[in-house]
Amino acid sequence: MTTLFDAIDPRAFRSYVFWSAVLVFKMLMMSYLTGRKRFGRKVFANPEDAAMTGAREVRTDPEVERVRRAHQNDVENIPLFVAIGFLYLLTGPDVTLAVTLFRLVGIARIVHTLVYAVVVVRQPARMVAWFLAYIPTIYMTLATVVKG
Amino acid sequence: MTTLFDAIDPRAFRSYVFWSAVLVFKMLMMSYLTGRKRFGRKVFANPEDAAMTGAREVRTDPEVERVRRAHQNDVENIPLFVAIGFLYLLTGPDVTLAVTLFRLVGIARIVHTLVYAVVVVRQPARMVAWFLAYIPTIYMTLATVVKG
Amino acid sequence: MTTLFDAIDPRAFRSYVFWSAVLVFKMLMMSYLTGRKRFGRKVFANPEDAAMTGAREVRTDPEVERVRRAHQNDVENIPLFVAIGFLYLLTGPDVTLAVTLFRLVGIARIVHTLVYAVVVVRQPARMVAWFLAYIPTIYMTLATVVKG
Repeated sequence: MTTLFDAIDPRAFRSYVFWSAVLVFKMLMMSYLTGRKRFGRKVFANPEDAAMTGAREVRTDPEVERVRRAHQNDVENIPLFVAIGFLYLLTGPDVTLAVTLFRLVGIARIVHTLVYAVVVVRQPARMVAWFLAYIPTIYMTLATVVKG
Repeated sequence: MTTLFDAIDPRAFRSYVFWSAVLVFKMLMMSYLTGRKRFGRKVFANPEDAAMTGAREVRTDPEVERVRRAHQNDVENIPLFVAIGFLYLLTGPDVTLAVTLFRLVGIARIVHTLVYAVVVVRQPARMVAWFLAYIPTIYMTLATVVKG
Repeated sequence: MTTLFDAIDPRAFRSYVFWSAVLVFKMLMMSYLTGRKRFGRKVFANPEDAAMTGAREVRTDPEVERVRRAHQNDVENIPLFVAIGFLYLLTGPDVTLAVTLFRLVGIARIVHTLVYAVVVVRQPARMVAWFLAYIPTIYMTLATVVKG
């Protein structure tokens, strides 16, 4: 029954593992970025955190909220990519197509974070980056539903 | 060592892949739904988004927030279902039971979204739909902890 | 091509499955905890929920928000651990190291929830627990990127 996994091409799989790990790393960095902003601006969500740094109270801050929104967008998209990327590989897709889709999602999600939370570029920069990851993810999902 | 995956029954696995992909698709659609509500009502979370559409400022809106809460509920539950469904299959469960659990979670999560964010039905509709996905997920998780 | 999964050591894999399932269970419990707090304090986010219990309106509450923040921290970290733990195993890591990392993340995430949302301990308790799960997750991610 290990034949279940026979459809997985090693080259496509290696690309999947690489880009999944890169995006997991990128998403983990959002926690670090939030923490740095919180400590730098003394903006905390919990009284015990504020107490630790001598900040007087819990409050919100536009820069912290921006990083949190970028993080939340990762939360809504990256775990789904990692999950569906694996299931999509089981449908035995064309290797070049699969590798291209993984790369596209990987690069687009990195650009999405950069223009959202690091340099803040005018729209539609973020929207374009978001779509360039969203459309391939939708495609892989539908391909999996149909062929799965 | 590929025997690790020998416990996976192909019929149960096919059902798992299908319902996982369906729920990933459903969850991806929440982003689309949020975007449509945001543009339709000109309600944005970022100044650069508001600027793009001529909206004067960032603000919140009850309808947008409702879709976002439904999306967040997916975020809290669907990736866990996809993860634990796979691990549960490795414990070699009864095929009919496994297929039934996957179907139940799949259908209940779709109904949950419909009564939460599309038609807005009186409680306990949403609570019942939520439980009908939650209980099977808890069951699969505990079965995996015990037999894993 | 099932050789893709040959690098997975059964003992490391069993540890991975166990701790992943334990953390999925712990995270699922956050929904239960939120619900209990909401009903106990009659604090709801939706008018239809408030209507069901005779609460007059939707509102927020510090205790409910604290549980929700702990849950959100799980959302940001636990699915990534489950995903990267699996990919990390494919890189053929030292078994003792892998098992130690899984245990560390598992125990640290449980302690994180306890000191965040159950007993509320002074900082840096939560920060230390968070780091003791974060650092191993980062390590596994980078090991996967490099060797993947």
